[in-house]
This record gives sequence, structure tokens and C-alpha cells, in this order.
Amino acid sequence: MLRVGVFGAAGYGGVELLRLLLRHPEVEITYVAELQTGRRISDFYPHLRDVCDLVTDESDVAEAARRADFLFFCLQPGVGTAMVRDAVATGKKVADFSADFRLKSVEVYEQHYDKHAAPDLVGTAPYGMPELHREEIRGADFVAVPGCHPTAAILAAAPLVKEPLVDLSSIVIDSKTGISGVGRSHINLLNHYPEAAETVAAYAMPRHRHVPEIEQELSCVAGAEVKVTFAPSRVPVVRGILATVFATLRDPDADLQSAYEEFYADEPFVRVMRAGELPSTKHVSGTNYVDVAVCRDDVCGRVVAFGVTDNIVKGLSGAAVQCMNLMCGFDETTGLDVINVWP
Amino acid sequence: MLRVGVFGAAGYGGVELLRLLLRHPEVEITYVAELQTGRRISDFYPHLRDVCDLVTDESDVAEAARRADFLFFCLQPGVGTAMVRDAVATGKKVADFSADFRLKSVEVYEQHYDKHAAPDLVGTAPYGMPELHREEIRGADFVAVPGCHPTAAILAAAPLVKEPLVDLSSIVIDSKTGISGVGRSHINLLNHYPEAAETVAAYAMPRHRHVPEIEQELSCVAGAEVKVTFAPSRVPVVRGILATVFATLRDPDADLQSAYEEFYADEPFVRVMRAGELPSTKHVSGTNYVDVAVCRDDVCGRVVAFGVTDNIVKGLSGAAVQCMNLMCGFDETTGLDVINVWP
Amino acid sequence: MLRVGVFGAAGYGGVELLRLLLRHPEVEITYVAELQTGRRISDFYPHLRDVCDLVTDESDVAEAARRADFLFFCLQPGVGTAMVRDAVATGKKVADFSADFRLKSVEVYEQHYDKHAAPDLVGTAPYGMPELHREEIRGADFVAVPGCHPTAAILAAAPLVKEPLVDLSSIVIDSKTGISGVGRSHINLLNHYPEAAETVAAYAMPRHRHVPEIEQELSCVAGAEVKVTFAPSRVPVVRGILATVFATLRDPDADLQSAYEEFYADEPFVRVMRAGELPSTKHVSGTNYVDVAVCRDDVCGRVVAFGVTDNIVKGLSGAAVQCMNLMCGFDETTGLDVINVWP
Amino acid sequence: MLRVGVFGAAGYGGVELLRLLLRHPEVEITYVAELQTGRRISDFYPHLRDVCDLVTDESDVAEAARRADFLFFCLQPGVGTAMVRDAVATGKKVADFSADFRLKSVEVYEQHYDKHAAPDLVGTAPYGMPELHREEIRGADFVAVPGCHPTAAILAAAPLVKEPLVDLSSIVIDSKTGISGVGRSHINLLNHYPEAAETVAAYAMPRHRHVPEIEQELSCVAGAEVKVTFAPSRVPVVRGILATVFATLRDPDADLQSAYEEFYADEPFVRVMRAGELPSTKHVSGTNYVDVAVCRDDVCGRVVAFGVTDNIVKGLSGAAVQCMNLMCGFDETTGLDVINVWP
Repeated sequence: MLRVGVFGAAGYGGVELLRLLLRHPEVEITYVAELQTGRRISDFYPHLRDVCDLVTDESDVAEAARRADFLFFCLQPGVGTAMVRDAVATGKKVADFSADFRLKSVEVYEQHYDKHAAPDLVGTAPYGMPELHREEIRGADFVAVPGCHPTAAILAAAPLVKEPLVDLSSIVIDSKTGISGVGRSHINLLNHYPEAAETVAAYAMPRHRHVPEIEQELSCVAGAEVKVTFAPSRVPVVRGILATVFATLRDPDADLQSAYEEFYADEPFVRVMRAGELPSTKHVSGTNYVDVAVCRDDVCGRVVAFGVTDNIVKGLSGAAVQCMNLMCGFDETTGLDVINVWP
Repeated sequence: MLRVGVFGAAGYGGVELLRLLLRHPEVEITYVAELQTGRRISDFYPHLRDVCDLVTDESDVAEAARRADFLFFCLQPGVGTAMVRDAVATGKKVADFSADFRLKSVEVYEQHYDKHAAPDLVGTAPYGMPELHREEIRGADFVAVPGCHPTAAILAAAPLVKEPLVDLSSIVIDSKTGISGVGRSHINLLNHYPEAAETVAAYAMPRHRHVPEIEQELSCVAGAEVKVTFAPSRVPVVRGILATVFATLRDPDADLQSAYEEFYADEPFVRVMRAGELPSTKHVSGTNYVDVAVCRDDVCGRVVAFGVTDNIVKGLSGAAVQCMNLMCGFDETTGLDVINVWP
Repeated sequence: MLRVGVFGAAGYGGVELLRLLLRHPEVEITYVAELQTGRRISDFYPHLRDVCDLVTDESDVAEAARRADFLFFCLQPGVGTAMVRDAVATGKKVADFSADFRLKSVEVYEQHYDKHAAPDLVGTAPYGMPELHREEIRGADFVAVPGCHPTAAILAAAPLVKEPLVDLSSIVIDSKTGISGVGRSHINLLNHYPEAAETVAAYAMPRHRHVPEIEQELSCVAGAEVKVTFAPSRVPVVRGILATVFATLRDPDADLQSAYEEFYADEPFVRVMRAGELPSTKHVSGTNYVDVAVCRDDVCGRVVAFGVTDNIVKGLSGAAVQCMNLMCGFDETTGLDVINVWP
Repeated sequence: MLRVGVFGAAGYGGVELLRLLLRHPEVEITYVAELQTGRRISDFYPHLRDVCDLVTDESDVAEAARRADFLFFCLQPGVGTAMVRDAVATGKKVADFSADFRLKSVEVYEQHYDKHAAPDLVGTAPYGMPELHREEIRGADFVAVPGCHPTAAILAAAPLVKEPLVDLSSIVIDSKTGISGVGRSHINLLNHYPEAAETVAAYAMPRHRHVPEIEQELSCVAGAEVKVTFAPSRVPVVRGILATVFATLRDPDADLQSAYEEFYADEPFVRVMRAGELPSTKHVSGTNYVDVAVCRDDVCGRVVAFGVTDNIVKGLSGAAVQCMNLMCGFDETTGLDVINVWP
């Protein structure tokens, strides 16, 4: 059994990770840390009573490294940077949920976030999206878990920029997100139930800080620089992202459906919808799946592609477990075969 | 007092129209028709008990024309076409909610809907959007009320195509709609509460039948042909549309904020948000307002514009009342100064 | 025109009051106060842009009394007590939204709230429910606006305790409330959208602080002491309360429907549903109506009665306007004939 | 591996059962039947694509009995009665989801449902609630799965009627249910998203057909006849029931908390909340847990008890699996240790 430790266990990413790890057959959770120490996880989350009686410890990398062999850091950008650096230095395997090590450029990072506390480590972790970096992740000891918007957007767009099938300067992405994306600690008027219910609202224009991730990864797939226009909006669902990608086709007759089916032929967690089908976030809620679909606007010579994901599973904690599986030599899907409820 | 009649009074468009007309100081409702006759409106809508005791009549244009001077047809496309033709022939004033007379081309209509039952009348009604066709509407006896997606999309995009500020072939629109847009009679699995709640879903790709309306009107503003790629999605709110418009700027330094403020300077129902503000559908819910906002993605040289509307008020029945006000010489805002609740 | 002033204008009760007063034909708003001064109401509530450009002043009773003849205090219990006392002392008319002057007993008040800051004034204001205290309110200069749960519960139960039709010791009330009841300033984890959505939860057991109000008023109607068991729950709607009242019938054959119809025969805002009909909060949302229904469980010899209300309209601000109308000699329904949207 | 067959596989009860059975380590699904035959389960439920490729067969008891050893009938009351009788006659083990065999009295059944098609079989199946009938179920070949409202109500009330702690004639139950309770086939205006959202509504008064089940089981626990008044309401959540039970205490000083803790001391799926805690349906959503809480209204000498359940898991399909585990000698919790997502 792999001994794992979790920092930031009581955030939405942390508790989702616990849900998956508690039923993972190869894993034993031996350490959980939170700001509020000495409390049972079920004190934060009553639904876990009788399910998870782990008690929170202080955030202490050395202690964590003694008790565990794989460390997850489920913290906001900038908060755990130094701890992640220390954890990597212990030689233990590490997955970081923050944005701190996703971007390969310190400069770009500092344009969107604060000053980086461990710039030397930037660029050393593969971007934890197995669909694009499986072999890198398999060989890695340290991985940067992708953001939620980028997961839906990149996987929806990647087959288009491969050859490329589209004009790389034409990409526009509209991404609708459920409100759990703000996390458990961003308790403010905007997320106050009476204000957040029954409305759809644009936000974070014109350059959401997830944009450079999307650009970095699509550029990597394309082998050329890709810049995108990205417009996020908030919709009153708890979980789920629908990213819609628009781009101008280079060849208006390209077989888009086949391109998607081939690109994702061997992927366990990407389901290419049949021609004519369109995705709905509820279909992937609670699971590690991303459903993608593609169709063509013949009149304008454009492709419209869609990706849906659960922002906390494949958009965060599920992706982290998928990376852990690869890094530790487990079957990639282990512990991720949860079936979601309907309705 | 203007005597008005309403066909299709028990649909969502009809009952919203009744709400507005019942408080309109210049209007008296003298005739309401529905498939189920002899029933009080409050039998269909218990919330209107003690508020509206009108009783439904058979749909009979001649009788309606005897009893009323302005006739509203709140029916699905194709259903009331012949009645509308007959109503127009009586010389009474007419507003049609269906899509039947919005498009100027029978051919385009028949590509998206069924065979047209009154092709001779096509092109005779102004498109009922005062912001673009005020003088035409003022002089008209027959008006075609715009669709809900087009209202948000056209008003968000119009200032961009005017000069134009953008490459006219670059326009992409992503439009999120609440579920009341399906109407009261489309009771199916997709709109069954347990299936429609907690999900965001793409639909009607690649050419929603509202697209030709958007193209017709933007072409009219631009004075040149405009084609758009349009992707609608359904979100679990009852009312509201957020349309997001993307386009490539011709001049990357154009003063977009001023362009919007000037374009809508004299409009009573379009509010241009201040620079940096972004719209939320709840801000216009229940009202005839459209809030529009514009911002620039400097990296890509693109503009992103937004429009929010209540799909049943400014997106349908409120627009109809606004047209009626113009056609009958009332102040344009009469009866439309309702204030929405918050939250 | 009556000049009115509003303290606490930017809370949910305040903004709802503004909505009603702005369209009230006999009223002019001449003073609004908030903690954050010098700001337009539309800075707090963007949906009011171009609708209400009032600017917030400091909370100053003397200044308010110079500028207005009727003062509304829309503040939390205990916050504005001293100001209310000062306002009453100016001889101006006053309506208080807090719970401070609803209870006739300082002792009972202090069991449920903090120490009372103006005990001398306790008992001087009629309980602002015209259905029970119309004449008192008409003659009053100072009124205590009822709470939201009590409005639904008292009006659902009152006809039962009148004669009484039920065993007065048998009354049990289960009250389901939308989340706007917490107000705009109670921004906490419980009301964080991802936690409040998709759940129904019990709270405030066993003695919600609204219970003494219910007991006081039902005792008053009964002419005998009434105690009730009250269980509130939170449901994920923005607005609305459904109170369900259970009691044992003294005469199992009593004509309950007639009793309700007679009790409320002359009430403009209480709609007794027809026998067999059951209420839904959406039917009264945004309006000053309370819909009540009554039915009998013959097997157990019990009555079950229901009341639905919009917690911010008839449950707060609408009731206040209704009282103002009575206190100022306007028709009781003036400014309250708003029609709600559907759906 | 136990071979199981499912009739009515594409309803909400059926698909929830599949979710649980597909991950049950002792079970293999060898037969699924639906009205629409020859279709993959994932054609009905796209979220199950790549998860469940079972194909629907005709409903044929003989064939089912050849292919499976345990048969689940997930059908509406009256629909599958004859098939259930035939299935029981084959000697295979059977669990019936309908109400047909829950009541021990044909007469009572026919007061609430239609004429019974297999009256001879009535009374032969234990009521499938292991908390009350574990040994009976263990020895049975045929079990009647409890209804959703009764599950929450009975388990909330059972410890009270045991001794009894309460006056057995004083029990009142208010039960709030999510909308999935109507099933997938009841697609009507009431459940149309725009009408069902944002409202709380009473329904099925005064004698919901689940009442006799509740009375039968509480009478059984009490060893005396129990009649209850029951008022259900619909709230806009997809899943979840909160039942609130009110009753008059015989001994006002009874130790209610201990009574509950003792009553459920050995139950794997009933969690007694700590004194002062109150339940929320989200805490049990997706799981087989029932959370119960109890508190006292000292003023009135009443107890208020609460039970929350997921209406499709413990309220239906999870209970069926729990029964199957007992009937087949598996550990009772096998396959039911799913952890729910948060939020």
C-alpha cells in the first residue's frame, strides 16, 4: 500500500481527493493537514462521519515525509509554494494542485499571480494531463495538476491544433463554470446563495489567469505559438464546466469526427461523443470523464468543439489521482472507476 | 384606452404580455384566446387569481378585430400564420411573436422552419427592435417581434458592425439561455426538473434557427453581409440570456467603450455598463432592459462583448409592448417601468 | 406626496421597500441611509441603475425627521433600537422591521434576543399585521413589522384558533424558508452557494426566535394562551415560505373551508384557496399575497393548514407599505398591486 | 458471483440499482429488461457510456429466471404485479420496488392503489427495512422494498414509538422531498423545470398513499395501532427527503438522545446525529445513510425528530441491495460503501 499525505485536506479539492483515495485499493492515507489542527475530517464535513475519521495535523513537510510516500498539496496559488519545494527536496513524490508549477515561465506566472516563491522549481514538473504528457508523468516525481477551465478547454481544442486543422490565431473559448470552482474559502457576496442563484454572469475578463495554461499547452500540442481569447461565465450549478471552442478551419472538409476519435482512441477518460451528440455537464459529474464533441459550421467555415468536465474531479483531484497512478506504476484508472448518480 | 386582444394567452409569452398590459395605463385587454376556451386565465396560472379574471375565447380573428384594435399573436412558428395574415387584412394593428415574419426571405425561413403559409406577407413587417428600426416601427401596423437569443446577441454586437469596428467575417457568438425559453408546452425529458437541474448543456448545433435573424439584422446594421457562428447552451435558470460576442478588431486601439455609449446614448432600455463591469442576467430579470458590456483582449486583438436580457420580457413580450407603444403614439416606455425584485 | 426616509436601505428588506416605494403613487423617497454613505443605491444594486439614483446618507434621525414624514427602519434586531426610539420621539410616523418592538414583553424579548435598549417603548407599537390589527394600525404612529415565518404561520393558523376550532395545545408548525431570509449581510459557509444548493436542512431547533411572535399573536386571536412547536427548514429557493400547521380538531366535522373563507372574506392580500387546491410559494413570489389552504385528516381528526408568502414582500417590506398606507390614510393596497412574473 | 436480473432498468430506481450493482463485488448483472428493447443502457443514460453496455431485453420472467438468480422489479405499482408473482413462483429470489407487496392488507392497498392483481401473495414478503426486520429479510426469498417517504419517516420515528416514549395518537409528520421522487416517466407541467424551480409546494393531501406503510410499520414497532397525519411538500432539489416528526412526550424528561443512540447502536446505515446537530439532505445524498436527529420542545412537552435520506438510494435501490446482501448471505454493507461528493 502506498502511504499518502494530503495538505489542505478540508478544501473542496482536498475532500474530493479524500473521497477518491479512501476507495483506492492501492493507497492508505497516513497524514492529513489543515490550518485547523486536531480536528476530524468529519468535523469539517459531516457527510463523512463514520466514513473518514482522520484527524488533521499541522502542515509539516518533514513529518509528512516520514509518514507518507506521496504528498498532495491542495492549496491556493502562492500559499504552499515553499512547502512544495521542501517536499520535492525530500525525494518523496509530490502532486501540487495550485497553479504555481503549471506554467513553464516565471515571468508569465508573475503576470497573473504574485511573485513566485520557488522560481528555481518552475518548469520541473510535467503538466499533469496524461492525455498530453503521459510518459513524462510516468517518469516524474513531481507533477503540476491542471486547472479546471484548462482541462475542459485544452481537451476540447487539442485535436484541432495538432496538425493543425485550424488557423492557430483564430481560437476563441467560452467556458461556463459551476460555482464550486471558487472553493470553500471564497465566501463572499458573489457566492451568497440568494445572489448566485438564478443568474448567469460573465467574469474575469479579459484575461482569466487560466489563459496562459491553455495557451502553453495548446502551443505545445501545435508545436507553434497559440494565443486564445477566453471568456468565462458563472452558472448556478454546483459542479461542472462546459468549454466551447470556436476556430476557423484550414480545410473546410476536414473529417473532424475522425480526428477526435483518433486523437483520443486510447484515452480511458476522454469520451468522444458520436456525431450529432452534444455534451451536458451532468453526464460527467462526479467522475473523471471528459466528454468532447465536435461539429462544423459550414456557412462560416468554422469548427465548434465542446468539452465538459467535473471541475473538482477531472478538473482537479481526479486528475491528481490519475497522475499518481502513473507515477506509482498502478493501472491508470485505479480508484477512478466511480459511477455517477443519475439524476 | 387602446383595446387589445391576445392570441395564445396561456403560454409564457402570453402570460408575460398580460402582466405588462394589465398595468399599462393606456390599454384595456378586451379579448384573450386560447386552445382551451371558456377558462379563466387564473385557471392556467393560479398566481393570477384575483388579479386577472379574463376568460379565454376561441381563436377567431374576426371577433377579435371587432373587440380590439391591437392584436398580439403569441404562438409558435407556423401555428398562427394564417390568422396573422387575416388579422393584418382587417386593418387592425398586429404584433406577431412567432418567427414567421422576422426573416425577409421566404427561402431562408423555409430552410429553418416549415413551408411558409403566408409568403406574400413576408418582408412587410419591420423587425420589432426599436434600437435598430424605431421609425419603421412607429409607422407600421404590423410588426414581427424578435427572438430571445437574437435580442441579446444583436444588441451586444450591433455597435461593432456599425462602422465596422471588427472584421465582419470573424463574429462568433456563444449564448447561454434559461430554460423558460422552451415555452410552457415543450414538456419533455430534457426539461424534466431532475434532468434539467444541475447541468449545462450545448444544444441545436450547428445552426440554431435564430441564426438567420441575427445575420439579417447585423447585415442590416453593417450594410454588408454578416455571417456568424452561433453556439447556444442551456443553463439551469428559469429566465435570462447571456450572449457573448467575439470578433477580431480592425483597429486594435478603437475606443470600444465610447462606441457603445454613443450607439446606445438615447436608448431607454439598453444600459451600457461602465468600463470594467460585466453583466449578470439577474440584473435585468423581469424587466425590459438589456445590459451590454464590451472589453478587449489586447493579446489577440479581439473584442468580447456581452448582452444580457430577460428572454420573456425584452426577449419577447416586453419588446412587443415597446413596439405597441411606438405604433400607437404612446411614450415608448409606458407600462415597461417595472422594477425587478432582488434577490 | 408623503416624504419617506429609509434606514438600512441596502439590505434585502431595504431594497425591496425601495422597489415598492419607487412605484407608490403617494410617496416620495427623500432620505436613504446606510453604513456606507455617499453611494448611489445602484452601486449596491446594479439592477437599479437608471432606476434609482438616490445617494446614501449617514444614519441621522434628526436629519431624517427634517427631510421625511415617515421613517422606515430596515435593520437587524438590536442595531437600530435607539434610533427608532429617537425617531418615535420626533413625532414622525415610524415602521420598524426589526424584532425589537414586535413582542409585548421585554422579558420574552430578552430570552430570545439581547438586552433591550428601549424597554419603555415595548408594547407601544401595534403588530403590523392588518389582518389582525387593522384599526390599531390605522391609528398608530409607530408600527412593528412582523417577521417572515410568523406572517405565513399566523395567517395559516389564525382561523383555527378563533373560536377555537382546534385544541389550542395541539398546534405544531413546520415552516420551510428560502435562503434570502438570512439577509444580505449573513455571508457564511451555510449560505455559500455550493453548500446551500441541492439540500434541505433543519435549523434553529427547538425554539426559533420567531416562536414567541407566533404565540403572542395566536394567543391574541384565541383570547387564551397558545404555545406552539415550530420546526423551520431551509430549502434552496431564493424567496418564499411555506408554513404547514397541524392541529387536533375539536369538532371533527367543522366546516374548515367556510371558516377560512369567512375569516379572510374582506382581506385584500389573503387568498383562500379553493377546497382541494394546495399552495406553492411561486404563486405569491414578488407580491404581497398570502395564499392559505386548509384540509382535514379524517383518520386522525386533525386539520392541516398551509400558508405561503414571499418572505421579503408580505413577510417584510410589503407588510410595511400596507401599514404605511393605513397609517397615512391611503387605500390599503396602494403601490402593492404588483403582478409577479411567471415562470 | 450472484447472477442478477433487473426489470425496469431505465427508470430512476433501475439506473440507481445498476450503479450499485455494477460495483458490487459479489454480483454479475446478467439480464436487464425495459419496454424499449434492444437498446444499450447508455442509450437511455449517456453518462453510462463506456461504463455499462448492457442491452435491454423483453420483460420475460422465464428467461430472466434462466439467466439470473436474483430478480429486481423496479416498476410502478400495479405494473409488474403478475410478473412478480411469476418470478416468486420460479423459486428465484425477488425484490420488488413497487408498493404492491409492502402493505399486509389487500383492503388497505386497494384504498390507495388499484385492484391488486396478486392478492394471494400479499403479506408474504417482509418489509425490506433491515433496521426493523433484519432476521425476516435474511430468511426470505421475496422482499418488498420500502417507499422513500416511509424510509425517512419510519426511521425518524421508530425509537419514539418503541416503548413508547410518546403518545401514539399524537404523531404528525411533515416530509419534504426532492423532485426525482416522481420518477423519470412522470413528465408533466408540475415537473417542467421552469415551473418546478424556485418553489416549495404542498401536495397529495390529506392522505398520501405512503401513509399506510408508515402506519403499518410504526404500529409494528409499537405493538399497538399507530395513525399519523402526514403532509408532504416538494422542494427544488433533485434528490433528498427531510422528514420531520412531531409527537407529544409521555415523559417530558425522557432521555431522547440515548434512546436514539441505543435503538440504532448496531445499524450500519443509520447515523444518529450528536445532540444539537441537525440534518441536511446533502449529507446523505448518493449514499445509503439515513441521518436522524432528535430534540425536545420543553415548552410544549413535545419531541421533534428528523430523518434525511436519499430518496433513490436508501429510499429505494440502496435498500434493495441491502436486502439482497442479507438474503444472499453477503455482508450487509457490501457494495454500499460509496462515498458521496461534496459539494
